[in-house]
Amino acid sequence: MIIEAEKIKDFSNKCFTKLGMPENEAEIITEALMEADLREIHSHGFMRLPIYVERMQKGLIETKANISYETDNGALALMDAGYSSGQVAGYLAMEKAIEKAEESGVGLVAVKNSNHFGITAFYSLMAAKKDMIGIVLSNVVPLMPAIGGAEKVIGNNPISIAAPTRTEFPIVADMAMSNTSFGKVLYAKEKREAIPEGWGVNAKGLPTTKPDEVINGGFLSSVGGPKGFGLALMIEILTGVLTGGAFSKMIPSMYDVNQKQSISHFMLAIDIKKLIPLELYYENINQLVSFIKNSKKAQGVSEIYLPGEIEFLKEKRNKEKGIHIEEDTLASLNKMAEQLGLSGLAPSEVTRL
Amino acid sequence: MIIEAEKIKDFSNKCFTKLGMPENEAEIITEALMEADLREIHSHGFMRLPIYVERMQKGLIETKANISYETDNGALALMDAGYSSGQVAGYLAMEKAIEKAEESGVGLVAVKNSNHFGITAFYSLMAAKKDMIGIVLSNVVPLMPAIGGAEKVIGNNPISIAAPTRTEFPIVADMAMSNTSFGKVLYAKEKREAIPEGWGVNAKGLPTTKPDEVINGGFLSSVGGPKGFGLALMIEILTGVLTGGAFSKMIPSMYDVNQKQSISHFMLAIDIKKLIPLELYYENINQLVSFIKNSKKAQGVSEIYLPGEIEFLKEKRNKEKGIHIEEDTLASLNKMAEQLGLSGLAPSEVTRL
Repeated sequence: MIIEAEKIKDFSNKCFTKLGMPENEAEIITEALMEADLREIHSHGFMRLPIYVERMQKGLIETKANISYETDNGALALMDAGYSSGQVAGYLAMEKAIEKAEESGVGLVAVKNSNHFGITAFYSLMAAKKDMIGIVLSNVVPLMPAIGGAEKVIGNNPISIAAPTRTEFPIVADMAMSNTSFGKVLYAKEKREAIPEGWGVNAKGLPTTKPDEVINGGFLSSVGGPKGFGLALMIEILTGVLTGGAFSKMIPSMYDVNQKQSISHFMLAIDIKKLIPLELYYENINQLVSFIKNSKKAQGVSEIYLPGEIEFLKEKRNKEKGIHIEEDTLASLNKMAEQLGLSGLAPSEVTRL
Repeated sequence: MIIEAEKIKDFSNKCFTKLGMPENEAEIITEALMEADLREIHSHGFMRLPIYVERMQKGLIETKANISYETDNGALALMDAGYSSGQVAGYLAMEKAIEKAEESGVGLVAVKNSNHFGITAFYSLMAAKKDMIGIVLSNVVPLMPAIGGAEKVIGNNPISIAAPTRTEFPIVADMAMSNTSFGKVLYAKEKREAIPEGWGVNAKGLPTTKPDEVINGGFLSSVGGPKGFGLALMIEILTGVLTGGAFSKMIPSMYDVNQKQSISHFMLAIDIKKLIPLELYYENINQLVSFIKNSKKAQGVSEIYLPGEIEFLKEKRNKEKGIHIEEDTLASLNKMAEQLGLSGLAPSEVTRL
C-alpha cells in the first residue's frame, strides 16, 4: 500500500503532539521515520511509530525531556538526554557536533540516556549537508553473542559515515555489525517471509531461516565473525561505556514496555575546509566516485553503485510516488490512532499497488 | 625458526641507521615490526624489512624526511609526511593527536604522503596507554573491486580501535576491510600453503585457494560484501581524499619499486577523562569485559576471548620465547644484510623449533 508522504507526515506529527511533545520535536522524529521509509529501510520507518507511542504513553520515552550537558568543553560534549526520544537527542547532538567542528575542526558529542534513534544515516547526513564528514555510532539492545558465546551480550550496533560530494547524492555508508538488522528480521516476520541463512541462529545456536526462531530466544550473527563482533564491541565502548551510560546486558529491548532503555550515541563531525580547501576536496571525491563508477564491471553487471546511491534513488522515486506501508503496519497505526483519539489513515488515502 | 627479540631488534635498527636514518626513528620502525611478529601478525613483521630497505635505497621512502604540518589548529592537524617511513609518520601523528586530545578532548591528525605503516593497532594502542581511546585508519594500495566490479579500486583499508582497561590487556580491534589481508596471502605464499576459500578471487573473478592467483591479477574479497566495501570506501575518503593525498588507483603497490606510494592515515584520540571520571570509565569497561568473558559459552568452547586478547597472550609468550621467523624470510633478511655490508642473523642465533 502506498500513502502520500504529506498525509503520513501530518498523521505522525499529530500522534506525538497529542502526547504533549513540542511540535518541532515531533517533526524531527517524523522526518527521521519518513527518511527511513523513503529510503526503503522500512524496518526503521513508520512501522516503529506504535512502539514509540506506547513507550511515550508509559513514560519510558519522555515527551518533555530535560536534555542537559554534563560537560561541554573544546571539541567535546557529553549530553544527558534525560530519556528523550532518540531522534530528538540525536538531532540536537549532531547539531552541536557540527557547531563544535566549525570552531575546532572536529566536534564530538557523546549522548547517554537516550532511546532508539532510527536510521543512523539520518544524523551523519546532517554533517554532509554542511560540507562536513559525519560519523555516527549507537549502541542498541544486545542481540548477538560473543565469538564462541551462546548468550546475547552485544548489540548489532550501527555505524554510519557520510561524506558530501558534488554529484547528485552524498556517499553514505550505514550498517549494523550483524549480518542483518533485527528490524529486518521483524519486518520479514511482518511480511511472513523466511530470512536468508546466515542472518541468525536459534536458541540452541543452530542456523535458522525462521524469523520467529531468531526473535524468540535466538541470536543474530555478526558480519565476518570476529570482525563484526570486534567492531560492535568497540562501538559499545565508544557509546555506553564512554558516556557513563548503560551498555550490553544493562539495556532492555524497546519492546519491553516496563523498562527505560538508556541508549548511548556518538556523533562526530569533521569540518573538511579546516583541513583542505573545499574545492580540492570536491575535486578529489568526484575523482574517487569516477574511479569506482567507471571501473571494469563483473560479468552481467550493468552498473556499479556507491554506498547510499540505491537509497538515494529510492528516496527520489518515493518522494513523488508516496510511501510503501505493509497492510499489517497500517492496521497497527490505525489501531494506535483510535486509542489516541485521532483519525486514522483512511482507506481513501490508501492506494493498493 | 626462533630468533631472540634483542638480536633481531639490533639487526633491524642497524639496517635503518646504515641507510642514514636517525636512531630514534629506526627504533620506531623496529618496534612496530617487532610488535607485529610478537603478536604473530607475521605478515606485517620483519618479513617486510627487505622491501622497506629496498624502497629506502631507491629514495621511495625518505630516511631523512621533511615532515611538516600544513594546518595545525584547535583539535585538528594535517601532516605532510614528506614520504617518510609510515611508522615514523604514524607514531608522530598519534603523539600529536594525543597532545591535542589533552587540550581539546579530541585530537585528529590526518597524514598524507606517508608510506605503509605496518600494524594499525601499534598506533591505536599508543592512545590506550595514555587513558585514551585511539581510532586509526589508513588507506593502502587498491586490492579489491567495488561490489559488482572486476577491477581493483579500493584497498583492504585497515581500522583499529583501542580502549584501555584495568585488566591485564587493553581491548583492541584491528582489521582490514577484506576477508583477509594481502600480507596474509603473501605469507601463505612464503609458507607455500593454500589460502581458505573466500579470501579472494582470481583475475577472472573466480574463487581460488592459490595465493599466487590472488597476488597475480586477482582480487581480495570484501568482508560481508557491501558492508566491508562501504567501510573501506569511507576509510579511503577519511584518509586519501580528506588529506588532499593520493587514493584508490593513484596508489601503486609497495612492491613496485619505481614509484612513491603516498599513503594517508587518520589518527584520532579521545581523552576519556574529559568526558567522565576515569574511575567510572574503568569500572564500566571492566563490567563490560566481565559480561563478555563470563557469558554463556557455545558448545565445545572453553573460553571467550576479547579483541586483542589472543594477540596479547601471544606477545607475552613470545617476549620470552623469541620471534618466529620463516626460513625464507631469514634468507631474504640475510641477503639484504650482505648487500648493506652488515653481518646477518647467524645460525648460532637461530634455534629450529
